Amino acid sequence: MNLWFTENQTDNLRLSFRVKNLVEFRKSKFQTLAVYDTVEYGRLFTLDDFVMLTEKDEFVYHEMISHIALSCHPKPENILVIGGGDGGTIREIERHSRVKNITLVEIDREVVEISKKHLPFVACGFDDERVSVIIDDGIEYIKNHKNKFDIIFIDSTDPVAFAEGLFHTDFYKFVFDALKKDGIMVAQTEYPFLKGDFIKEVFSSLKQVFPIVSPYLAFIPTYPTGMWSFAFASKKYHYINDLNPEFTKDFAEKLKYYTPEVHKAAFALPKFVKDLIE
Amino acid sequence: MNLWFTENQTDNLRLSFRVKNLVEFRKSKFQTLAVYDTVEYGRLFTLDDFVMLTEKDEFVYHEMISHIALSCHPKPENILVIGGGDGGTIREIERHSRVKNITLVEIDREVVEISKKHLPFVACGFDDERVSVIIDDGIEYIKNHKNKFDIIFIDSTDPVAFAEGLFHTDFYKFVFDALKKDGIMVAQTEYPFLKGDFIKEVFSSLKQVFPIVSPYLAFIPTYPTGMWSFAFASKKYHYINDLNPEFTKDFAEKLKYYTPEVHKAAFALPKFVKDLIE
Amino acid sequence: MNLWFTENQTDNLRLSFRVKNLVEFRKSKFQTLAVYDTVEYGRLFTLDDFVMLTEKDEFVYHEMISHIALSCHPKPENILVIGGGDGGTIREIERHSRVKNITLVEIDREVVEISKKHLPFVACGFDDERVSVIIDDGIEYIKNHKNKFDIIFIDSTDPVAFAEGLFHTDFYKFVFDALKKDGIMVAQTEYPFLKGDFIKEVFSSLKQVFPIVSPYLAFIPTYPTGMWSFAFASKKYHYINDLNPEFTKDFAEKLKYYTPEVHKAAFALPKFVKDLIE
Amino acid sequence: MNLWFTENQTDNLRLSFRVKNLVEFRKSKFQTLAVYDTVEYGRLFTLDDFVMLTEKDEFVYHEMISHIALSCHPKPENILVIGGGDGGTIREIERHSRVKNITLVEIDREVVEISKKHLPFVACGFDDERVSVIIDDGIEYIKNHKNKFDIIFIDSTDPVAFAEGLFHTDFYKFVFDALKKDGIMVAQTEYPFLKGDFIKEVFSSLKQVFPIVSPYLAFIPTYPTGMWSFAFASKKYHYINDLNPEFTKDFAEKLKYYTPEVHKAAFALPKFVKDLIE
Repeated sequence: MNLWFTENQTDNLRLSFRVKNLVEFRKSKFQTLAVYDTVEYGRLFTLDDFVMLTEKDEFVYHEMISHIALSCHPKPENILVIGGGDGGTIREIERHSRVKNITLVEIDREVVEISKKHLPFVACGFDDERVSVIIDDGIEYIKNHKNKFDIIFIDSTDPVAFAEGLFHTDFYKFVFDALKKDGIMVAQTEYPFLKGDFIKEVFSSLKQVFPIVSPYLAFIPTYPTGMWSFAFASKKYHYINDLNPEFTKDFAEKLKYYTPEVHKAAFALPKFVKDLIE
Repeated sequence: MNLWFTENQTDNLRLSFRVKNLVEFRKSKFQTLAVYDTVEYGRLFTLDDFVMLTEKDEFVYHEMISHIALSCHPKPENILVIGGGDGGTIREIERHSRVKNITLVEIDREVVEISKKHLPFVACGFDDERVSVIIDDGIEYIKNHKNKFDIIFIDSTDPVAFAEGLFHTDFYKFVFDALKKDGIMVAQTEYPFLKGDFIKEVFSSLKQVFPIVSPYLAFIPTYPTGMWSFAFASKKYHYINDLNPEFTKDFAEKLKYYTPEVHKAAFALPKFVKDLIE
Repeated sequence: MNLWFTENQTDNLRLSFRVKNLVEFRKSKFQTLAVYDTVEYGRLFTLDDFVMLTEKDEFVYHEMISHIALSCHPKPENILVIGGGDGGTIREIERHSRVKNITLVEIDREVVEISKKHLPFVACGFDDERVSVIIDDGIEYIKNHKNKFDIIFIDSTDPVAFAEGLFHTDFYKFVFDALKKDGIMVAQTEYPFLKGDFIKEVFSSLKQVFPIVSPYLAFIPTYPTGMWSFAFASKKYHYINDLNPEFTKDFAEKLKYYTPEVHKAAFALPKFVKDLIE
Repeated sequence: MNLWFTENQTDNLRLSFRVKNLVEFRKSKFQTLAVYDTVEYGRLFTLDDFVMLTEKDEFVYHEMISHIALSCHPKPENILVIGGGDGGTIREIERHSRVKNITLVEIDREVVEISKKHLPFVACGFDDERVSVIIDDGIEYIKNHKNKFDIIFIDSTDPVAFAEGLFHTDFYKFVFDALKKDGIMVAQTEYPFLKGDFIKEVFSSLKQVFPIVSPYLAFIPTYPTGMWSFAFASKKYHYINDLNPEFTKDFAEKLKYYTPEVHKAAFALPKFVKDLIE
């Protein structure tokens, strides 16, 4: 079938997926949501025509946003996820038995709904009894919680529209305050090959707020350029020195991307990325 | 201008670049060659409508195909490059003053010509007096040289048509014989996310021939999936244990991707890649 | 939604429709069938990725394939349609109360099924009690019927694969024999702007078989070039001289394209088309 | 070469041409201009990424905008063309030896320049000594000339930006005044299949100004829907009754679309078009 979903990755770059089936399309108060079956990457979930995840490569994003911080924090009991309404991130967090409570704050109820309906491979994350789902604006939520979480994950869409506020110094200060005194924040921070200035700014902001800050990288084929960055921002624990391979040992065989070696390697930045943030 | 070059990365996946200018298009005896100016990635060079390199991200491929082996071999005097007719790989090799001779064997004379005409940022590699360019079939060339080279780089196109033979056990045996007793071979080996079976086979073949074999990875945005693999195959030197950071120290500031840390990290394979080759 | 169905109209020309919904996709013994909802043209039906009809412009094809011959034949009692399994052509034929029997011979049962399921605006043609549907190869069917029909409509797909035989002299001879002594054949005959040689050949073949032959034209936006040709081939009645406007008078107000003036105008060929067939 | 120029015909419909060569791209004060060589339609000229003409089908537009009025007016001595800076329309007008002066008023000097440089098949129109080219805003020009022209051709781009004023009642009144007492105006008026409301409005405006008004149609494959409309608006001469086939007889063999029969047929409107303007 000559049917294609195209992501305009930038004004001048497009990635097109051959589509076998349009599973659902809907508009929420915040955005358009669509689920497709693609030939190359299996099920594909988009928001406002941007790729959120595909069945075939979502494991990279979800393992790498979660296990890095969870492998460095010795006692990650209370976890907050801002965004992440598809469930993939909490699916990975739940693998850690040390985690006692996971609060997921998603602004758009329909992201959770469509995921539960059509994306069972990520939505399986909602089944765990440690999880509380709150439909709310993450920024408002953060403002109203102080000294509460061990790790906060910012699993957001791109920095446009309602997600834009998630990438500013002010917001990072609220996150800092919402974390306990040895807390860690991890956030997705876009793609260095084409968004160097943005990344420079984000890390400059983070460094004003947190004492320990570093980007780290992962290969994500269906995101622009295939090289995705995350921010590790921490009050106390170091991303390499405090890495404890024991923390992922029980379920190491179930993972498809993360290993303790990959953890360390993810912080070995290509020179142009290093230069960006120094 | 609504003018687009599209690479059919697979039958079901397309990457499209907005084009500002078509610089040249020609047909050689072997393939079609085209040079475009794109908005996002600058100058783009294609063979048979497949992306060979772009001005903006070629540094990754060329630094990572070359400096890994050159950082492990203590005395890399005689170097052979099969393919690589654009000049980018030899540009990087030339940074190493320990290298005395570089022989480049390119099957298609017009690749060299078009690069010299339109791709000065890679074709600058041809200016060095240590370089000899031979227009010939790399397979034939290899067969006729024994015990001669310290490092052989297989900088080929995708494993189709005339390049297909570059990925078989028989060819690897010729390479083995063409290397000196402590020689190293590096080859580009496609993208693990979508070509897992191919990579499995290639590394299985390599292991039958070489005692030390490992894939390593680099982020290349304009190649399919953005995650590219290379094979390191060596008779004696190990890709990590024999890494000597001194070998790239003199020109470290000129590089944009490679660092000794990136070198090590490139061998930390995501679990699914590791599983592929074990 | 950035989802597009693309018809490769030729190797070098593509028409793309933004799709709102994929209604159904299936493979039959003969071809792939798909039904989409498009933004610009409403429901779209394709066979092997070629546009068969759209909700918004199908009226042109179906009115123009049928009413021309039916307006020239004084007593069109027995009608045969080869192909046309979507029902659109018989829907138009049924408007003529002079018609007593309509036999539709469609090779692919699933065309009829999918039309009944998803294309009610054309499939309404199946409801009339004068209609008999036969699932069979039209060429075989024609061979086995002599001197039987007043008008035969060849409502086929493009001249490739199993439809190819519908455009040869031998087939036209069978059609001639299947017609009564004053019978008329009408066939779709592709697009003169880009298929001049094909049309030349088809009309040369037809003229060897029928005494009265002419192409006529209609504007069909979703077919290649927008200019579609039909063949009028007749044993006795002339396409202009025997036109009787009374024959469409009762339902003239229900039509959207055909009028007796349009009928005449359709035979006024642009000079390059006239030159093609002379 | 997998290089494509795409016209976004509407927000939901795209036509793509495989490109062999980008001949020239430039920006003028008014618009972007580009010339391509396409595989299917030869040389292609675009303004702001909209198709203006192609080598292979421009004859339809240029013959049909010009010969209709020129075949109805008995003494077309002074001709004005608004727009038409590529030269194709004046090339056709010049075939009529009864014409004494042709004034072409084009707003963008660079349209004339690029046509002379790259589109010799239409730019040949500038060589005739009866032609005066004026670089000016057509609306201003018309306002300042009264009772002067026998025929005025509005050979404009689509009704957006600076061309928008060419489709309003006020403008038509200026045209009326600029014409002699038996003058005729012809204008291109877009595509009825998708711009019905626009056409309804244009013809309603024209009827308020001119006593004799009718649309007529031509097949133009590279314009949206392939069915293009023109307005014939006249003070005295009728588009059918005053048609004199003698007026095109001398060069009839040189034309590829227009014939006196095609002239008449062009006014036989499909019922939905007729309904639009009644």
